[in-house]
Amino acid sequence: MENQIFHLQYAMDTFYFLVCGALVMWMAAGFAMLEAGLVRSKNTTEILTKNVALFAISCTMYLIVGYDIMYGGGVLLSGVLTGDGYVEETLASFAAREDGFEGGSIYSGASDFFFQVVFVATAMSIVSGAVAERMKLWSFLIFAVVMTGFIYPMEGAWTWGGEAVFGMYTLSDLGFSDFAGSGIVHMAGAAAALAGVLLLGARKGKYGKSGEINAIPGANLPLATLGTFILWMGWFGFNGGSVLKLGDIANANSVAMVFLNTNAAAAGGLVAALVTARLMFGKADLTMCLNGALAGLVAITAEPSTPTPIQATLFGAVGGLIVVFSILALDKLKIDDPVGAISVHGVVGLFGLLIVPLTNDGSTFSGQLIGAATIFVWVFVTSLIVWGILKAITGIRVSEEEEYEGVDLAECGMEAYPEFTASK
Amino acid sequence: MENQIFHLQYAMDTFYFLVCGALVMWMAAGFAMLEAGLVRSKNTTEILTKNVALFAISCTMYLIVGYDIMYGGGVLLSGVLTGDGYVEETLASFAAREDGFEGGSIYSGASDFFFQVVFVATAMSIVSGAVAERMKLWSFLIFAVVMTGFIYPMEGAWTWGGEAVFGMYTLSDLGFSDFAGSGIVHMAGAAAALAGVLLLGARKGKYGKSGEINAIPGANLPLATLGTFILWMGWFGFNGGSVLKLGDIANANSVAMVFLNTNAAAAGGLVAALVTARLMFGKADLTMCLNGALAGLVAITAEPSTPTPIQATLFGAVGGLIVVFSILALDKLKIDDPVGAISVHGVVGLFGLLIVPLTNDGSTFSGQLIGAATIFVWVFVTSLIVWGILKAITGIRVSEEEEYEGVDLAECGMEAYPEFTASK
Amino acid sequence: MENQIFHLQYAMDTFYFLVCGALVMWMAAGFAMLEAGLVRSKNTTEILTKNVALFAISCTMYLIVGYDIMYGGGVLLSGVLTGDGYVEETLASFAAREDGFEGGSIYSGASDFFFQVVFVATAMSIVSGAVAERMKLWSFLIFAVVMTGFIYPMEGAWTWGGEAVFGMYTLSDLGFSDFAGSGIVHMAGAAAALAGVLLLGARKGKYGKSGEINAIPGANLPLATLGTFILWMGWFGFNGGSVLKLGDIANANSVAMVFLNTNAAAAGGLVAALVTARLMFGKADLTMCLNGALAGLVAITAEPSTPTPIQATLFGAVGGLIVVFSILALDKLKIDDPVGAISVHGVVGLFGLLIVPLTNDGSTFSGQLIGAATIFVWVFVTSLIVWGILKAITGIRVSEEEEYEGVDLAECGMEAYPEFTASK
Repeated sequence: MENQIFHLQYAMDTFYFLVCGALVMWMAAGFAMLEAGLVRSKNTTEILTKNVALFAISCTMYLIVGYDIMYGGGVLLSGVLTGDGYVEETLASFAAREDGFEGGSIYSGASDFFFQVVFVATAMSIVSGAVAERMKLWSFLIFAVVMTGFIYPMEGAWTWGGEAVFGMYTLSDLGFSDFAGSGIVHMAGAAAALAGVLLLGARKGKYGKSGEINAIPGANLPLATLGTFILWMGWFGFNGGSVLKLGDIANANSVAMVFLNTNAAAAGGLVAALVTARLMFGKADLTMCLNGALAGLVAITAEPSTPTPIQATLFGAVGGLIVVFSILALDKLKIDDPVGAISVHGVVGLFGLLIVPLTNDGSTFSGQLIGAATIFVWVFVTSLIVWGILKAITGIRVSEEEEYEGVDLAECGMEAYPEFTASK
Repeated sequence: MENQIFHLQYAMDTFYFLVCGALVMWMAAGFAMLEAGLVRSKNTTEILTKNVALFAISCTMYLIVGYDIMYGGGVLLSGVLTGDGYVEETLASFAAREDGFEGGSIYSGASDFFFQVVFVATAMSIVSGAVAERMKLWSFLIFAVVMTGFIYPMEGAWTWGGEAVFGMYTLSDLGFSDFAGSGIVHMAGAAAALAGVLLLGARKGKYGKSGEINAIPGANLPLATLGTFILWMGWFGFNGGSVLKLGDIANANSVAMVFLNTNAAAAGGLVAALVTARLMFGKADLTMCLNGALAGLVAITAEPSTPTPIQATLFGAVGGLIVVFSILALDKLKIDDPVGAISVHGVVGLFGLLIVPLTNDGSTFSGQLIGAATIFVWVFVTSLIVWGILKAITGIRVSEEEEYEGVDLAECGMEAYPEFTASK
Repeated sequence: MENQIFHLQYAMDTFYFLVCGALVMWMAAGFAMLEAGLVRSKNTTEILTKNVALFAISCTMYLIVGYDIMYGGGVLLSGVLTGDGYVEETLASFAAREDGFEGGSIYSGASDFFFQVVFVATAMSIVSGAVAERMKLWSFLIFAVVMTGFIYPMEGAWTWGGEAVFGMYTLSDLGFSDFAGSGIVHMAGAAAALAGVLLLGARKGKYGKSGEINAIPGANLPLATLGTFILWMGWFGFNGGSVLKLGDIANANSVAMVFLNTNAAAAGGLVAALVTARLMFGKADLTMCLNGALAGLVAITAEPSTPTPIQATLFGAVGGLIVVFSILALDKLKIDDPVGAISVHGVVGLFGLLIVPLTNDGSTFSGQLIGAATIFVWVFVTSLIVWGILKAITGIRVSEEEEYEGVDLAECGMEAYPEFTASK
């Protein structure tokens, strides 16, 4: 009968991974809607195309090479998961667990891949927003191939993969902890985005000659709001699934705390950004609210299981505060990020890493700094090289005329809203 | 080994709550899209801002005070859920259950909070639609603080919280039963909305001097349709999670019946509203269809577990019929509700309460009336007071000029669709 | 204690069905958004109305007659599921399973109905896209009644229902296998659509007098993209739930492989369509990308559990390739399908059936052909008869003037985007 209990725990943990993975996959729709809502109508088809294509590329590249780089194995490609003896081997693994029933999680390798692969796509989705409205589509997609097949899996191997990166020490040995990826996923995506933006330059007309910063309003705010809600919902899977096990009381409780704290942090971030923007600009700034919620989510992602819900609300609120100032500061530096992705995922991602030691004894401030630096330097430098090569060979920026006309017609041959826009 | 079974049941019931909670959270996106689709473009940014902000406020207020008012405890804030001994205490609770394995549900307190908190936001979301296009944003948000931190938790305590409200009797003692909240959530939201609408008055131009009622079409019907589908989907969590336990045959079966009946009632409501509108207006009225589906959902919410699926379809259909006439009647009374929220959630919410005794022996018609009256009077009167104070101090209605120009620019400083609308 | 394990397995398998069913229900929103995004704005309200109404009709008709035709029983209507003795009977069923714990799946009948009913709606949703922009709304809805109450349930009975169709042989005896419905659901929907399109004719202006094919761009590509993401997500439930059991190691693993392969096939289809369209048209064609992803999903649906993930990616990619050529070919044949539904679900659905024997020994190529022919002939012929009768009695096509003005005003009396379109 013990075997039957193992069967049930395996099934439960596998299903939990799959449900969480489906929620994270859903985040791809969230990024697509958020970015499509925040660009101008003439660049909407292209950003949608980038988003759907990068998701497909991420899934394919991570399947072919990325997962193996990050975790080793190669089990998936061989199809061994469906072979004879799988059930027996799995039952033996259960029996061999050191601490019995409450020991390490055991679940379908396919469900683990499914959960991991959608994280890669999340990292890549962050990039598309920051380089929107002026980057060549095909150069972007080539970058996506390298990012999802190599750059991300390498830093993933050094962190979640447990591979030693400093001599015989892993980042974890040095006191680094990143529960669900404030750094490994979000800051990594932002680092790649920053490298691209620096080589790409700002959109025409964004920064005036006498130093003025021109707002370029997004074409469809309901879409951007929808995207934020989708991301908020998907984040329950992103953080909740990162507990990696559901099937006993302690882990189930941990998953529940993670859901609760994730929600609390998003709420805190939204309220903080709403109030901050009101005090600074005199208006209830919807786009700042949305970025505040996302900042709250990013801030809690590095450690959603140990804070109390009130702490989570506060951490999220500080994230929401930071993101408002970060967006303003990047504009001062003429780093043009149409959707605020570098601030939300990069600046607040770093903040998320740095607050982990406040509630998690297993991490240290120095470990977090070393980990953050490792991820940032690796992703930023390799991305700069790849973007640089692309710039030299194929170019990464559309022509001035294409930018003026909108990249939709130039790259995709179709308008997103052919009947709505003024020219019609 | 019995302990291991308890572990699994705890994990399963916790996960079930979390999945249902995530679906209810998703309803916040549904309300946002529904309302954004049914208002004019010039008021869209503001209604989106209200929706995201009220969700964040609800989560924060319910965490700080609401949950404690409703259920007592204060466990969440202390962080005891993650402390030592939690697993042992939980196992002891299982062992002490009166009727053994099939006894009362035991699951993570964090998952319970997560499930409950999204209900508060639902109640508050109902209000935003009814007062759309003319209420001041910040007055609305202050109301949201009081509603979600005090008004709703009080009536929640008297109903689901099991607190005595009539001397030593609880509403349940008097024969009141509201499974998932036709009254406690939906009619409560509608009562708060009605109080606001009465003090606020109708939108300019809605009712002509010679008694004519002018249709003010929504700007984006695909959004409204999407919102309805989101609500429909989220309602599976709303009603399904309200069984409160999944982990044995009887309860699992009950959850399944609830999913099935919830879907059947929505379908019945939609078909009934479609046919009714066709007979009355000669057209297939999409907005009536959407409200019909929502009415079906509200109608079944007070008791989705005991009807047969055919009964559920019929109950939903009557709800769909009622909502058409209620919307027309409110317009006759010059109660201006841009999205039909008072009809859908209030009138049909009451209907839902009143049909519970038809299939549930544990409730009585008089009990339902007493419960409905208690909820309505409490929420309506306290809301009227709060709206009244706000009206006196900060004002609740935007200026005529702001209403004419649209509240988006006045309140949020940005248009929802800057490139689509005629003025551009 | 064995009984307690049965309780848990029952609860787990029931919940798995419900979660998967909710995801499939969500596909209804996906079809609605996809179709609303790909038609012109003047026909958007009507396509939305068709989509919400067909979902409601499907749920109601399948409840009243369809499920009984397909699987027999009548259990649902009698309400026996909630009666006394249900738990005891269920435990007895567990005990009587031939191969013990890992035997056949046992779960709530209500959850099975809930999962099945959303498949009917999927089949019907396929039709609405193909006949968009010129079919009469009420004729379409009458067809929906017959399709979901009779045509689909009959072929469902011959396939998943296990009813003998050739003398004493079932299709399964003849070597036919369709895991989640590439043929039974998708090709069936496409066959009904094709019959309708042939009787209906092309939209005015689609095909010029000198043989030219005019592109009629969709009005809202973000909506179409959202719809595709929704379908992609919902498909995890569609295919994942079709394993029919979760609660032991082998089945949990199978569910996980299905999720993974479903995702891989969609990704493969998208990339293949993107590259193919680029080579043929010189542009990154977003609508082809979306149809490519859907084609990948349809292609893997007939057998998502046995391929390796690389095989799934390749199968999806071939589907994505096929769909581009199929869309071009149907236009050559002047078969006007505004959203490409016949190509995606019909042509690729057939392809999906034909590749099953490559990885599943339990099926044969001849069996797949016989099954495909049976489904197609049955659905196409009966649909042709029903459409023909409707054409003779009520007419199926709107008047030329209504088509020119848009069916929204004629059929629904309201515009989808009253403030965005040029005429305002």
